[in-house]
Amino acid sequence: MPKIPKSAAKTFHLHIENSSKRPALYQLQAITMAAAVKRHRELSKRLKVTIGWDGDILEDTIKTADFMINSNPPRERLRERAPHLKWIQTTGAGIDGLMPLDWLPTDITLTNNSGAHGDKAEESCVMALLMLQSRLPEIIANQQTKKWEQIFTRPIAGKTAVIVGFGDLGSAAGRAAHKLGLKVIAVTRSGKAARPADLACKATRIDSVLPKADFVIVTTPLTADTRNLLSRERLDLMKPTAGLINIGRSPVVDYVALCEKLDKGELAGAVLDVHGPEPLPPDSPMWTTRNVIVTPHVSCDDPRYMDFLCDSWFDNFARKLAGKPLANQVDRKLGY
Amino acid sequence: MPKIPKSAAKTFHLHIENSSKRPALYQLQAITMAAAVKRHRELSKRLKVTIGWDGDILEDTIKTADFMINSNPPRERLRERAPHLKWIQTTGAGIDGLMPLDWLPTDITLTNNSGAHGDKAEESCVMALLMLQSRLPEIIANQQTKKWEQIFTRPIAGKTAVIVGFGDLGSAAGRAAHKLGLKVIAVTRSGKAARPADLACKATRIDSVLPKADFVIVTTPLTADTRNLLSRERLDLMKPTAGLINIGRSPVVDYVALCEKLDKGELAGAVLDVHGPEPLPPDSPMWTTRNVIVTPHVSCDDPRYMDFLCDSWFDNFARKLAGKPLANQVDRKLGY
Repeated sequence: MPKIPKSAAKTFHLHIENSSKRPALYQLQAITMAAAVKRHRELSKRLKVTIGWDGDILEDTIKTADFMINSNPPRERLRERAPHLKWIQTTGAGIDGLMPLDWLPTDITLTNNSGAHGDKAEESCVMALLMLQSRLPEIIANQQTKKWEQIFTRPIAGKTAVIVGFGDLGSAAGRAAHKLGLKVIAVTRSGKAARPADLACKATRIDSVLPKADFVIVTTPLTADTRNLLSRERLDLMKPTAGLINIGRSPVVDYVALCEKLDKGELAGAVLDVHGPEPLPPDSPMWTTRNVIVTPHVSCDDPRYMDFLCDSWFDNFARKLAGKPLANQVDRKLGY
Repeated sequence: MPKIPKSAAKTFHLHIENSSKRPALYQLQAITMAAAVKRHRELSKRLKVTIGWDGDILEDTIKTADFMINSNPPRERLRERAPHLKWIQTTGAGIDGLMPLDWLPTDITLTNNSGAHGDKAEESCVMALLMLQSRLPEIIANQQTKKWEQIFTRPIAGKTAVIVGFGDLGSAAGRAAHKLGLKVIAVTRSGKAARPADLACKATRIDSVLPKADFVIVTTPLTADTRNLLSRERLDLMKPTAGLINIGRSPVVDYVALCEKLDKGELAGAVLDVHGPEPLPPDSPMWTTRNVIVTPHVSCDDPRYMDFLCDSWFDNFARKLAGKPLANQVDRKLGY
């Protein structure tokens, strides 16, 4: 962590804005922030912190706020209402809900919480891969109808995982697949990917690798380029024995086509953690689609999430004081 | 593999007995044996092989058989009916169905298929541990009622697994737990266990470690000592947040007590691969017990199972020819 210049004296105002409608995991409670302040005692001396809920003190606090932690920042006339604001931190990793960023003054830095999801995402991918390999969706369906059918399956090693996106979540998925002995093909914008990818392929050439996949793991943020990337035509390129895991964003995959293919047995199974809309409504066909396991957007989230967020925020605050560029800056054009 | 003495000339008769009622995985088909014969060409020159189904040629073939592969060998007047028989190989690992071994002449060696289950068992334990940690039983129950409830859970590292039995399956469970960053406590007859166990405890002192378990994994064979080892009183020693995995034998655990505790929420969940009886009948309460995942005795079995069996049988045959002791001999007293 960069050292804090001792001579500096200015105190900064951080406003934390919460929504009572979001799960507690995504709320930055006073008690969590107080614990973080204790962990970062020296840095905290340079901070004044306010915490608001559902906009109760927002209008007043943003008048003086230098920094804001807020996943749904005020967009209208932001510079006018928040004349000192220099930096907004979101609590999530995906910022598709804030796009396009035309409301964001160019001198305000936007950072996301990328990096807090890796450990949990890796475990979730290990579990989802093994569930698909073991044909657990069928075994669970059999349990529901009290049917005893011995479905025997081999160990997973030697199979191939195609991982769409290879950022924080994609790398976690890659580590999961690699640890299980799978061959890992990463699909990225640049066509490059670090280990544990065995191969990498440009997103524009995804058609060439989908037929090789025993498992496709979707981990990309939602951008103009990734929307409907796994279209019906591309799902058709997958083997009927292949399975799909989505821990990225739902509009990246044509879920209507996916459900049709699963119900027809043209794909073997899916573990889907992201949905549209969320909460998934009771009348969604997804709940009952054949061989689908629905998990409620929990695969990459850890109850210690806000502790991680606070720690990485303080690390960034130290960088800011030292005049260094912030980590986790969102690229305005790419949208992640 | 020991070398075959070239001078030896005697040909041995191996009779393979199958049951058409068992799953195909446990049938040693002629095609599988033919492939094994090709892999072990030299050794095969010393063999005459017969394959019977449901006893069709049994009475005739055992008159001359030296060896038998048979999971349900004839027990009445065996020595009289099979005067040359020296060695019986079972296709499974557990031989509780053959106990007590008072029917088995003392000069006939009994070997089991221990060792063929490790890779698959390890993966199944990784999956089951992560499912329990992620509270997947509840998430699956919610899917069935189309209920969206975000159940957030931490990564599993740092938790404690108590593994009951530390043979082939127990070691596999230990590797699974160890890879996930768990502390591994092995419960064994001797109170000793090799890595990846972090600690070992005598079975007679199991009460001292059950309260420490976040997960209990039952992997023991069924013997007089292990029957009802996880009794109601012992299940009561487990934390209410703990989960149980059984890949050993069902009578090792008091399933009536287990179901009651799960339904009351006094245990967090269970992944049960072994049942009594099997197939689990439709009226079994197990199918619908709260937070239970029923898998149909598939956790440790690999479709390549019979290939493994053949290879380890030929390895043992070479030992026999070389006058060396056979691997995987069952201890008549211990019953495994």
